[in-house]
Amino acid sequence: MRTSPYETIWYNASLATMTPGGAPYGTIRDGAIAARDGRIAWVGARAELPDAPERLAERAIDAGGGWITPGLVDPHTHLVFGGDRVADFERRVAGESYVAAAAGGSGILHTVSMTRTADEATLLRDALRRVRTMIAHGTTTLEIKSGYGLDVETEMRLLRVARRIGSELGISVRTTYLGAHVVPPEYAQRRDEYLALICDVVLPRVAAEGLADAVDVFCDAIAFSPAETARVLEAAQRLGLAVKVHADQIADTGAAAVAARFHALSADHLERTGDEGVRLLAEAGTVAVLLPGAYHYLRETVKPPVDALRAHGVPIALATDCNPGTSPVLTLPTAMNLGCVLFGLSPEEALAAVTRNAARALGLNDRGELRAGARCDLALWNAASPAELSYWLGGSPCAGTVIAGRPLSS
Amino acid sequence: MRTSPYETIWYNASLATMTPGGAPYGTIRDGAIAARDGRIAWVGARAELPDAPERLAERAIDAGGGWITPGLVDPHTHLVFGGDRVADFERRVAGESYVAAAAGGSGILHTVSMTRTADEATLLRDALRRVRTMIAHGTTTLEIKSGYGLDVETEMRLLRVARRIGSELGISVRTTYLGAHVVPPEYAQRRDEYLALICDVVLPRVAAEGLADAVDVFCDAIAFSPAETARVLEAAQRLGLAVKVHADQIADTGAAAVAARFHALSADHLERTGDEGVRLLAEAGTVAVLLPGAYHYLRETVKPPVDALRAHGVPIALATDCNPGTSPVLTLPTAMNLGCVLFGLSPEEALAAVTRNAARALGLNDRGELRAGARCDLALWNAASPAELSYWLGGSPCAGTVIAGRPLSS
Repeated sequence: MRTSPYETIWYNASLATMTPGGAPYGTIRDGAIAARDGRIAWVGARAELPDAPERLAERAIDAGGGWITPGLVDPHTHLVFGGDRVADFERRVAGESYVAAAAGGSGILHTVSMTRTADEATLLRDALRRVRTMIAHGTTTLEIKSGYGLDVETEMRLLRVARRIGSELGISVRTTYLGAHVVPPEYAQRRDEYLALICDVVLPRVAAEGLADAVDVFCDAIAFSPAETARVLEAAQRLGLAVKVHADQIADTGAAAVAARFHALSADHLERTGDEGVRLLAEAGTVAVLLPGAYHYLRETVKPPVDALRAHGVPIALATDCNPGTSPVLTLPTAMNLGCVLFGLSPEEALAAVTRNAARALGLNDRGELRAGARCDLALWNAASPAELSYWLGGSPCAGTVIAGRPLSS
Repeated sequence: MRTSPYETIWYNASLATMTPGGAPYGTIRDGAIAARDGRIAWVGARAELPDAPERLAERAIDAGGGWITPGLVDPHTHLVFGGDRVADFERRVAGESYVAAAAGGSGILHTVSMTRTADEATLLRDALRRVRTMIAHGTTTLEIKSGYGLDVETEMRLLRVARRIGSELGISVRTTYLGAHVVPPEYAQRRDEYLALICDVVLPRVAAEGLADAVDVFCDAIAFSPAETARVLEAAQRLGLAVKVHADQIADTGAAAVAARFHALSADHLERTGDEGVRLLAEAGTVAVLLPGAYHYLRETVKPPVDALRAHGVPIALATDCNPGTSPVLTLPTAMNLGCVLFGLSPEEALAAVTRNAARALGLNDRGELRAGARCDLALWNAASPAELSYWLGGSPCAGTVIAGRPLSS
């Protein structure tokens, strides 16, 4: 009986390792990747393998001359929800604004109402369909927020569904409690009581049951103030949970500064963040998660401060922001295309934004680059260059994904 | 032996028949469609079927409670080409304009150079991959233009590849000769000789061999003048070929008026067409084919005159414009989303634009609506409403397509 040093080797591919500091994309031409125990055990030029792939591994996979990238990481989604917001979409393309929709009782509160009445099986079934599409286009790690329940039971249900998506599909899911998404209608005149519910009731339960990896607050003109945000983030940090902030999408209310003060993993949106906010994010080591899907759907004209983020060295991530209202976007290559076309990111920045920087936005330092010791999460592409991932729209050249060394599709 | 009146019946679906004048989308709730000999033999409410579906047809297909629309029609693509234009994409997101790229020797001429050196098998293999993605998202009829060869042999090769896509995949392909795309470099100082080549050499051969269903001219500031366009369209009409025009994308040179004068099937792009041009299109019965993919990729700010087209009653179609330079868009639901978000079409207008009006833009009056006698080209959708086709981006709820009564995927 032969014992191979590796379980699987992928060869006959160019590798976009995304390791910074070297060639563009950290490229290795004619490379190979060897996996053992769910991790990358070896990565390099195929010529440097000490033997033929099929003699070194139980399984040698010819990648057909395409590209292999780190499995893509989607650091911001709201993909578990009931119903849809097609009616909002129809009104918006006819000219109505997002703020008007929110004020008119549609918007997020419509989804809250649909989600509260949806049972766990229905929520799971619909979300699984969306996540399967994401995986088919390269996603291997996914953040999922609650925030369409707001009441205790529905928020817990959303987080349980998010956890089940991970166990059912084998994809890596990070959950985020977003009770502070909007004030629910039953607390409309009692904001303070709602914040007390979040901080004193739901957060401790969520933490005790291990349902959330992080806590998020929508800090903006139509949601929570910086002071309210700070109250929730403090409560989260007392419980040992990581924090993040929806910041400055609609108005610059100083949300980026709050995110920085709490050393948030990420500050997300940032369309209206000023230079001082960017400077504070840089100092705090907070990642900027840009959400071009919402920018597209809302026909925004004010872009996030990409040049300032670059100048200050804030890492830029991209996410689908998959949600029924402002970003029914299903795949990361779509977010990459929108990030390039709408925000002027380069295709290399867009790929770093959904690998290395997106992993950092989730506090995960074991993925997002192809290097020995990292999780063996890969995406395989029928492409002549990694820029093609950002180039196409409405389809991607994804040929398969690998999660913890295990091929999921091809 | 039992003889069923129908070959196939689809039931348990809402039907968006797209027949104008009645309910939105021509909707029939809880409908059924029966096919015989590749055509729709019966369509209506399931309750009006004279017997159970499985007793009326050899095959009864439960559509699972989703929606059925006419198979989608893509009336404008350049999807057979060599190489890619990723380098143009990278320069453009960094700020360079399309016109500058064209002047700098990249642009269309770069693809011409890559296409001339590509053999027929490679062109076919790459194009088939793209068309399979299109079919998976609902397309059942497809226009394909030449125009990346410009010399006689390569143009013929492109049209042959287009025809082969139809025969290999069973999809309905309409071919268009676009020799007048740009002046090739070898004729740079001899425009008139190039036009003579098109009119006196290539057009007669293309017509004699039955390789083209129509002839198109890129009539714009960086391509051909209205007078040059008229010369090509006249030659085409003498040979009995239908005509169409790329009109007023970059400047209003009067291209829409030329299209109208020749009663073109369609005038395409129209970003800069003025009110008089729209009026002439309406009089001529020419369809406006809008191409929001190019608008997105080029970061255009001048929209086609949608309100004027509506006011004058010009039928509006949408297409992917699938091409490597300005619209690497693969699916019609993507074009529908962009048409709604960028141009303000309603989801119902967007669906009419890729069914009824797109069929008319190709001169096909046997499809684009679900009605008895039409070809049985269908698209099946896992959706709660037909507006969902325009709502998602980066994936579509397409559950299968049917071409001439034959299910292609599910």
